Amino acid sequence: MLIPNTNYNQLKQSYLFHNIALKVNDFQSRHPDKKIYRLGIGDVSLPLCPCVCEQLHAAVEDQAHAETFHGYMPECGAPFLREAVAKHYKARGVNISDNEVYISSGASDELGDILDLFDKSSAALVIEPAYPAYVDANIIAGRKIVHLACGAYNSFLPEPGDADADLIYICSPNNPTGAVFDREKLAKWVRYANERGAVILFDAAYEAFIEDEALPHSIFEIEGARTCAIEICSLSKTAGFTGTRLGYTVIPKELERGGMNLGEMWVRNRTTKTNGVSYIIQKGAAAVFTEQGQKQIHQNINIYKQNAKVLTQVFDKLGIWYCGGSNAPYVWIQCPANMTSWEFFDYLLNEIQVIGTPGAGFGSCGEGYFRFSSFADTQDTEIAAQRIYQLLNK
Amino acid sequence: MLIPNTNYNQLKQSYLFHNIALKVNDFQSRHPDKKIYRLGIGDVSLPLCPCVCEQLHAAVEDQAHAETFHGYMPECGAPFLREAVAKHYKARGVNISDNEVYISSGASDELGDILDLFDKSSAALVIEPAYPAYVDANIIAGRKIVHLACGAYNSFLPEPGDADADLIYICSPNNPTGAVFDREKLAKWVRYANERGAVILFDAAYEAFIEDEALPHSIFEIEGARTCAIEICSLSKTAGFTGTRLGYTVIPKELERGGMNLGEMWVRNRTTKTNGVSYIIQKGAAAVFTEQGQKQIHQNINIYKQNAKVLTQVFDKLGIWYCGGSNAPYVWIQCPANMTSWEFFDYLLNEIQVIGTPGAGFGSCGEGYFRFSSFADTQDTEIAAQRIYQLLNK
Repeated sequence: MLIPNTNYNQLKQSYLFHNIALKVNDFQSRHPDKKIYRLGIGDVSLPLCPCVCEQLHAAVEDQAHAETFHGYMPECGAPFLREAVAKHYKARGVNISDNEVYISSGASDELGDILDLFDKSSAALVIEPAYPAYVDANIIAGRKIVHLACGAYNSFLPEPGDADADLIYICSPNNPTGAVFDREKLAKWVRYANERGAVILFDAAYEAFIEDEALPHSIFEIEGARTCAIEICSLSKTAGFTGTRLGYTVIPKELERGGMNLGEMWVRNRTTKTNGVSYIIQKGAAAVFTEQGQKQIHQNINIYKQNAKVLTQVFDKLGIWYCGGSNAPYVWIQCPANMTSWEFFDYLLNEIQVIGTPGAGFGSCGEGYFRFSSFADTQDTEIAAQRIYQLLNK
Repeated sequence: MLIPNTNYNQLKQSYLFHNIALKVNDFQSRHPDKKIYRLGIGDVSLPLCPCVCEQLHAAVEDQAHAETFHGYMPECGAPFLREAVAKHYKARGVNISDNEVYISSGASDELGDILDLFDKSSAALVIEPAYPAYVDANIIAGRKIVHLACGAYNSFLPEPGDADADLIYICSPNNPTGAVFDREKLAKWVRYANERGAVILFDAAYEAFIEDEALPHSIFEIEGARTCAIEICSLSKTAGFTGTRLGYTVIPKELERGGMNLGEMWVRNRTTKTNGVSYIIQKGAAAVFTEQGQKQIHQNINIYKQNAKVLTQVFDKLGIWYCGGSNAPYVWIQCPANMTSWEFFDYLLNEIQVIGTPGAGFGSCGEGYFRFSSFADTQDTEIAAQRIYQLLNK
């Protein structure tokens, strides 16, 4: 009899977005005339940039003609895109060679797949509140999870302390809190990882939202990171690729554990378990790294940043504690009047038809907090912000 | 200290395509004037069909405008594509519901990822000669491999016998042999799997090449398969998607092991470890399943079939044993004059500049056999076939 992977039985059902949908549908059926302002889900709303679309069209045309047709792509990424990513790092002063860059179908895919590199006996450290997939992917792999809770007392940017785990997830700028590690704090984690031989999985999906020049976009801006870190990046929020799918991962050549080179292992993994990412999408992605592409994606990012500002200005006026909002697309607030995060959710929905995400959905230490996303339509965001101000300024 | 996955140390280096490249480069440098006829690698050469390209362009335009823009896709596939695939099965008399269809980035990706469903204590049965990734993906997962060798004596279509394994790989039409299981032989495997509670991973990547109406395209044409099989399909060879990337997988609702439902586990896996397949590519893929799409892809497939026929006619005239070539894009021949497969490779390269793939690269029982692919240019295939005839008819 085939034995299934019984680790799945250890997964907790996440009812977060399901419950949100149920509550919203219920409200809408009782009040079909009321417009709902959705500041909940972290999906982008602006279309792909013109220069990306132009290259996508050109790549489709390449696939339409025998002379320009592309069959199987190199499993670790097309050379033109690996080179474009490496140049992008160099422009920020980070030396990464082309073949340290691995093209993926997106950060969420890669965050799951990369676990193939590690023995299941190594525990995973998850800083909470956190993106739920970190925990679930490790439970499926049979790995022990060490939860490191944080809160407003440490600005949601904890230090390593005495956490006992060798696979460390750091997401900065953070989802859901919007908090960003500065160089000094990140250097402590790099030191800790090098000292104990741990590996940091650095989720940099939101790096393009950093505007403060003192903050690191990449963990490889920190000395010592090349011997302890893997960086996982995505064009989802950077260039609106949530539905178009492309990411990239950096594994430095120096990264070894137990005498095994993780980059070489990853090459072997990709050549076994994939046939590369779509030529069409890689071609579109390369446009993001051109001068014109950078200009165009930052026009979109600035719209989201402006949305975030509209929200943080309201919380400033109301005197509500928050983090994020600058250098990050999420604003993470403390629920007013000691409401739980689901109470606050219901309050906003019923009173002013604004939807956010209850912090309890990101781990128990997220209770009492609430996430707003800046990815919604600008006009909707402005109306929602006004309504929040009027409601909470009573 | 983080412990790496030491199973990687058990992987054997595959020098197959690397050695082929070395030998070809060496020959070409000594004979720069000689043209090489490449009937080795299993990659397509014809461009995507017009109706697929049209839909890819339309999908890029959708992503270019806010009103039609698509963000995150459902992790298990876009409803329009799951529906199109299910309808395609129904047209062949196989009842599959939309939510038994899971859209993937391709069969090779899925064949690796799907192993997440199984405990590593269940051994994997690989019928050899075989696509090397079956073995390697299971070695990375720490699974024991049971090799079932076959040969011309059973037409490379073995029966279950007393093989002791619970995860059974069947590729039909087969890569590399081109052999196709008929209903009766496949039914034996289905019975065997149901009796011992094994699961068959049915790789149907080449089903579109079947022309004999008596042969099954899908394992779900066999009674009892819904309780023991997962079918993994690809548009790579069906519609020239090797570099465009899209596949689909069917997990029947009835498929349970140890009280766990494999389809439900897969939904949980996909929602944790992916964010779905690119909207653009799914839109292009849907065009394959339209009436026009089926007509256009079969025009291309017929060109490859004609190439295969050109080759098999030569082997018929020469009296060389082979299988495949009809109902499959590969022709698998017995090397003449008791040559080893690498000796035959060198002989063809040096004498007539035709490249094929030595059977020894697909497992030890492939020694003495040789694979020709029908995916090359038609004129090249015709010249290569003539040269083979002249060389071996001495």
